[in-house]
Amino acid sequence: MAKTKPKVSPLAPEAFPTIPPIDGVRVATRACGVRYKGRTDVLLVELADETQAAGVFTKSLTASAPVDWCRKSLPGGIANGLVVNSGNANAFTGRLGEDAVEQVVEAVADRLACRPSRVFAASTGVIGEPLNFKSITDNLDALAADLAPGKWDEAAKAIMTTDTFPKGAVKEAQINGTKVTIAGIAKGSGMIAPDMATMLAYVFTDAKIPAPVLQGILAPICERTFNSITVDSDTSTSDSLMLFATGAAGNADRFSGPDDAALKDFRTKAEAVMRDLAHQIVRDGEGASKFIEITVTGADSDAAAKRIGLSIANSPLVKTAIAGEDANWGRIVMAVGKAGEKAERDRLNIAIGGITIASNGLAVDGYDEAPVTAHMQSPEINIAVDVGVGNGRATVWTCDLTHGYIDINADYRS
Amino acid sequence: MAKTKPKVSPLAPEAFPTIPPIDGVRVATRACGVRYKGRTDVLLVELADETQAAGVFTKSLTASAPVDWCRKSLPGGIANGLVVNSGNANAFTGRLGEDAVEQVVEAVADRLACRPSRVFAASTGVIGEPLNFKSITDNLDALAADLAPGKWDEAAKAIMTTDTFPKGAVKEAQINGTKVTIAGIAKGSGMIAPDMATMLAYVFTDAKIPAPVLQGILAPICERTFNSITVDSDTSTSDSLMLFATGAAGNADRFSGPDDAALKDFRTKAEAVMRDLAHQIVRDGEGASKFIEITVTGADSDAAAKRIGLSIANSPLVKTAIAGEDANWGRIVMAVGKAGEKAERDRLNIAIGGITIASNGLAVDGYDEAPVTAHMQSPEINIAVDVGVGNGRATVWTCDLTHGYIDINADYRS
Repeated sequence: MAKTKPKVSPLAPEAFPTIPPIDGVRVATRACGVRYKGRTDVLLVELADETQAAGVFTKSLTASAPVDWCRKSLPGGIANGLVVNSGNANAFTGRLGEDAVEQVVEAVADRLACRPSRVFAASTGVIGEPLNFKSITDNLDALAADLAPGKWDEAAKAIMTTDTFPKGAVKEAQINGTKVTIAGIAKGSGMIAPDMATMLAYVFTDAKIPAPVLQGILAPICERTFNSITVDSDTSTSDSLMLFATGAAGNADRFSGPDDAALKDFRTKAEAVMRDLAHQIVRDGEGASKFIEITVTGADSDAAAKRIGLSIANSPLVKTAIAGEDANWGRIVMAVGKAGEKAERDRLNIAIGGITIASNGLAVDGYDEAPVTAHMQSPEINIAVDVGVGNGRATVWTCDLTHGYIDINADYRS
Repeated sequence: MAKTKPKVSPLAPEAFPTIPPIDGVRVATRACGVRYKGRTDVLLVELADETQAAGVFTKSLTASAPVDWCRKSLPGGIANGLVVNSGNANAFTGRLGEDAVEQVVEAVADRLACRPSRVFAASTGVIGEPLNFKSITDNLDALAADLAPGKWDEAAKAIMTTDTFPKGAVKEAQINGTKVTIAGIAKGSGMIAPDMATMLAYVFTDAKIPAPVLQGILAPICERTFNSITVDSDTSTSDSLMLFATGAAGNADRFSGPDDAALKDFRTKAEAVMRDLAHQIVRDGEGASKFIEITVTGADSDAAAKRIGLSIANSPLVKTAIAGEDANWGRIVMAVGKAGEKAERDRLNIAIGGITIASNGLAVDGYDEAPVTAHMQSPEINIAVDVGVGNGRATVWTCDLTHGYIDINADYRS
């Protein structure tokens, strides 16, 4: 059952970014031996009183016990703690799983002197095995004693599973003339491989924004970032994205709603942080050798454009062609056709690396192949498709499908 | 761009079956040089006057020109000819593509002395390149001169693209006391790889059944056979299934409709032929080393069961686990969860090779691993999932995802 430990993805950023502490957030990590040996596997985060919380969770109908817990607690809108373990997903563990979450969350609430419903949780790792929650609760005193500002790289490392590098991102923004910081960490390397991967992302800000407004900001950004990436079309039982606002920056916080003009810069920068994290997950895609951006225009609606984009991004035939550095637009046409959305065959345009290779339903006779070939050999591939029926548009990101994916996911026992 | 020529799939049947001629059907094949050299690439079939026709075609919105032609002609209900070429799909070829179909079909109609609207056509191979229709029309006199009964293996070979073996099946049935024969040929090896593969299946019978009844029989069988298989979730621009009934058997043919009791044996045997052909396509799946049957029960409806089954069958994580002979039921749970259909996590049951390994939402403690491990090492894998909410059921078939798939589909140019 042992997985070959992959080296760092060739598409990884050069280094973990420098991220300043966020006022109102303290972090601790520890090697608790939930499953892994010799590495940290529990992250504890303490959040200031009245920290506002927003979240988006997996659409899987077999969600994990901690996801069920978070969904139940989110309407309260306030978070004082977050506890995440790697090594065990606490999914498909039935009644035992619910108990384990309650045990962990209550023990954390005790240390942070808050209500359990203000403690959020996540677990990522093998599924179907009972979570040894005592390995976590036995270490909570030590974790609580270690709480300190900053340490984002440690936090990002503690939640890794099959990830080959820790993922972080940061931006500053202005709200009503006050500077705020938005910092995030994430993990994920298959869109999900439920026995070892899952998508988790936590974004922290010192901005003062009420929970309902925060949720209204988070949901559409999630659609355009984390919900616009795919590695292998598989969906985890544990996917979680949360945004916590401590309010320590003390900005003026009367907002008409999530679309308030005073929040424009915050929305832009928060999206930049989440897009960066989402891209890093794709860059750590299992076996990935190419980062692929697919933009679909001319669709019936933005949602239709996204479905067409994901149909292209999830096609094994498109992904293997790109792995082979083959500008195989025939497979792109096929993926457009199978998406089930309106497309006008005789108005379809396809460009690769900025060069139009199919236009108005026909291969472009004698297009300049040299720059397309050069583009296909680079690690960043750009595909633009116009389906010729409307104004809908969307951009999605994926990686190629290589022998590395099979190596990581086919556990040859024989 | 050259593909490595794979040897015969390890899952192939031992030999092409012995199939008798069907009265009213004559066949010819020829090496016309549409694209391939040194092999046959055009199939011409002559069908007796008043042969009744039924068909199901690709749901792709970027269907090929011959598919458009067949859809337009099918309401006539009568077929006198069929012409199929391999090497070029005549898809994404715009106005030129429509012209090519008309040229070919009119030339065939001329040789067979019938109306063009009674000639059906298909093309399979590279897409986006104009079809050199003269390579076909120039050979039609020779093809017409060669028409003869039987020769099913030659017919199956002429329509192959990336297939590693020709596919045929036959059954006898009784209608009102008269013996009829049902014979079919098919091709396909990716669920589709649009530049070289596609699913084509043609079934011929001497039964006398009016076209509307024939269509009513074909559509639901297609749902349970060809539309219940997947190799890589990709859908061809050219997929075509047709059923031709020459009427030469002269059975009594007053039927109340497709569900008439007199047609029960015919329906059963026709489904057996089509299921056999569909299975052969999966057995020729690109890179396949395991044939996988997935049965889903306890779903909200049969359609829901099928969507859950296809979600499991299309999951790269499930397919790679099976390639690795790993009884990874966690990935099956994940695939159930992402299907978007009702499932009761705490009533979910999963059996592999007949051994229940997860029951009522929990791993079965201490189940007998030895027979499961032995089953995973065999070439035929059986997965049964009960999702615990209703009476819907469906069976789907797929193959595993191996390095062979990547080898065939990633055209390493560098």
